[in-house]
Amino acid sequence: MSVIYLDYGSTTPPDPRVLDAMLPYLKENFGNPLSLHQFGDKPREAMEKAREQVAALIGARAQEIYFTATGSEANNFALKGIAVAHRQRGNHLVISTIEHASVMNSAKTLEKLGFEVSMVPVDKWGLVDPAAVKETLRDDTILVSVMHANPEIGTIEPIADIARAAHERDILFHTDAAMSAGTIPVDVGEMEIDLLSLAGHQFYGPNGGAALFVRKGVRIMPFIDGGIQERGRRAGTENIPAIVGLGTAAELAQAEMKARAERLIPLRDRLMIGLEGSIPHTIVTGHRTRRLPGHASACFEYVEGEGMMLHLDMMGIAVSSGSTCTSKALKASHVLSAIGIPAATANGSLVITMGEQTVPEDVDAVLEKLPPIVGRLRKMSPLYKEI
Amino acid sequence: MSVIYLDYGSTTPPDPRVLDAMLPYLKENFGNPLSLHQFGDKPREAMEKAREQVAALIGARAQEIYFTATGSEANNFALKGIAVAHRQRGNHLVISTIEHASVMNSAKTLEKLGFEVSMVPVDKWGLVDPAAVKETLRDDTILVSVMHANPEIGTIEPIADIARAAHERDILFHTDAAMSAGTIPVDVGEMEIDLLSLAGHQFYGPNGGAALFVRKGVRIMPFIDGGIQERGRRAGTENIPAIVGLGTAAELAQAEMKARAERLIPLRDRLMIGLEGSIPHTIVTGHRTRRLPGHASACFEYVEGEGMMLHLDMMGIAVSSGSTCTSKALKASHVLSAIGIPAATANGSLVITMGEQTVPEDVDAVLEKLPPIVGRLRKMSPLYKEI
Repeated sequence: MSVIYLDYGSTTPPDPRVLDAMLPYLKENFGNPLSLHQFGDKPREAMEKAREQVAALIGARAQEIYFTATGSEANNFALKGIAVAHRQRGNHLVISTIEHASVMNSAKTLEKLGFEVSMVPVDKWGLVDPAAVKETLRDDTILVSVMHANPEIGTIEPIADIARAAHERDILFHTDAAMSAGTIPVDVGEMEIDLLSLAGHQFYGPNGGAALFVRKGVRIMPFIDGGIQERGRRAGTENIPAIVGLGTAAELAQAEMKARAERLIPLRDRLMIGLEGSIPHTIVTGHRTRRLPGHASACFEYVEGEGMMLHLDMMGIAVSSGSTCTSKALKASHVLSAIGIPAATANGSLVITMGEQTVPEDVDAVLEKLPPIVGRLRKMSPLYKEI
Repeated sequence: MSVIYLDYGSTTPPDPRVLDAMLPYLKENFGNPLSLHQFGDKPREAMEKAREQVAALIGARAQEIYFTATGSEANNFALKGIAVAHRQRGNHLVISTIEHASVMNSAKTLEKLGFEVSMVPVDKWGLVDPAAVKETLRDDTILVSVMHANPEIGTIEPIADIARAAHERDILFHTDAAMSAGTIPVDVGEMEIDLLSLAGHQFYGPNGGAALFVRKGVRIMPFIDGGIQERGRRAGTENIPAIVGLGTAAELAQAEMKARAERLIPLRDRLMIGLEGSIPHTIVTGHRTRRLPGHASACFEYVEGEGMMLHLDMMGIAVSSGSTCTSKALKASHVLSAIGIPAATANGSLVITMGEQTVPEDVDAVLEKLPPIVGRLRKMSPLYKEI
């Protein structure tokens, strides 16, 4: 049985061209880029090329890119690094209610250290209202952090407007673009972004290759203290294969992003409309059009997401029942709660994310196999029998 | 011209068997280990196997191993995570004067946050005296951190005795074993270690694969906040290829460590004795016998280490002039200063580190080529002409 992978939002398979670019740095070009002898040369040059490739993807300059191991590390670096560096100015941060766990929990840690965090709500599509952000800003606000696109519901936030609102009060703006960078256009200049987190494994790059963009001139405390790597702002021997893979993936994404999106959007829309049409009591989550190209998500009432997911898995279709970073925690999703989905309904959540290897037949397969699964599972639900 | 790599202390080439083990996880087994569908299974199983392999290398239990991206991250995690978690008990930490930059600078950051740090000096061989550690301990001391082996001078510290001194006062003991784990025996049980940092790229594993051992029951704050990875103590999508590579390297190191060391120790000793015998004004640094198997280091008076290093590089021999993590900082080494080497002499430092691909002829090559280089460089030194 061939297996259909529809969980690109959890992680993407590395592009073979990415792997080809990485391999020499796992073999003969293994040197430490800080070495002053010849074994340092190729790794160092490759790292600086990757820095330019990543910068080009988001309209930044190479010296504004700091490599990290994960998007989560980049988010921790951004929030904690800015908070500590700007404490003299104030101790108030603003985030949205649908941020990734790495932003949420960094904010919670900062609260324990004496910072104050305001959470801006979202509407039923998961959109943050820039006017609502504006109202939350105070004289002692030092940072606004709102994600670019949400992994659970696919909604793309109006971050340019939010950034502008922050800048009117001279407040820094960070965005977690782990789900969006490499998938949809991001321009840190046009969007007035001061800090941006991205993760290569979300756009066919390798795990271990991620980055934080920090606008030139923005003061930030190092997150990992130590040696002089990344201009003293992120210590630790650089993971050159992963960095090279990230750079290559960034370059490929820049060139192919438009074609990828144009192919995926119709598949996404057909899948969402098809699910609504064939399964009663289906609530599509997230915004209909302001959403990630390959991202479909819905809640199916009177049924458990994990049950659907496991049944689909047995039939050779891999999807997710929520955010992968917290999926095993089995807690109700804070994102679905934030868009007003009742906890019982939120339990029936599925996230189906498509990508490079997805073909129209994969959508057909979901539309064929999911309705009977939902039907069978609902028959076992005492609540469903009542209606 | 074939090039001789004698900078294993900066980073080691990944073992081909390590790379073979990693490749499936860069290809078909690319899934996210947190995924509950079948794409998560192999990555998750591979990760848990690697956790057991790493645990076995140091005599720990698998659930005591937390994967990180670098040794520096592990050191930051250990110092900051313990300091913040145990603040109620006290705010005093003890480190040695020859710690790695990631321990030194984590300690400096903690000082800025209100913690107090005492630095225990070393003798002229670079050894920390456990009795001196004992004298530094106070009722409010929460952590002692002394490295297992030093990257610049190769000295192996008496960490079991230092750990015992800490434990007599009920104080936690951490060791930075980035240079030693996988190279010489480490047993966290026998040595009474509570926390230990290790880095795969120092023993033929890949970059991006490192770990912190935290003894079961020891409270520690997460360093990277976010999802539930690593039991909620280190968030971020796991770098499975690097973790698999680390595990494989750990297993190979356990099996081959003894043979590797037995082959390298005579080469090391022949090199050090040869350099002393053929180059006047040579000061071997570090301990003669309590030192890493493949590690030779010396200061050559009246000559610049970087000059020697670059000349050797042109002749096809790659060595280091100091700690790679700070080599481009061009500051005087805090380690050489700590063992009493005057700054002018410390400038003439070379670190020559051997490993798996080193053959006796490589030692011959250094002993043949370095003396005339030192001779020529000294002729250009105004100080040397005076004597």
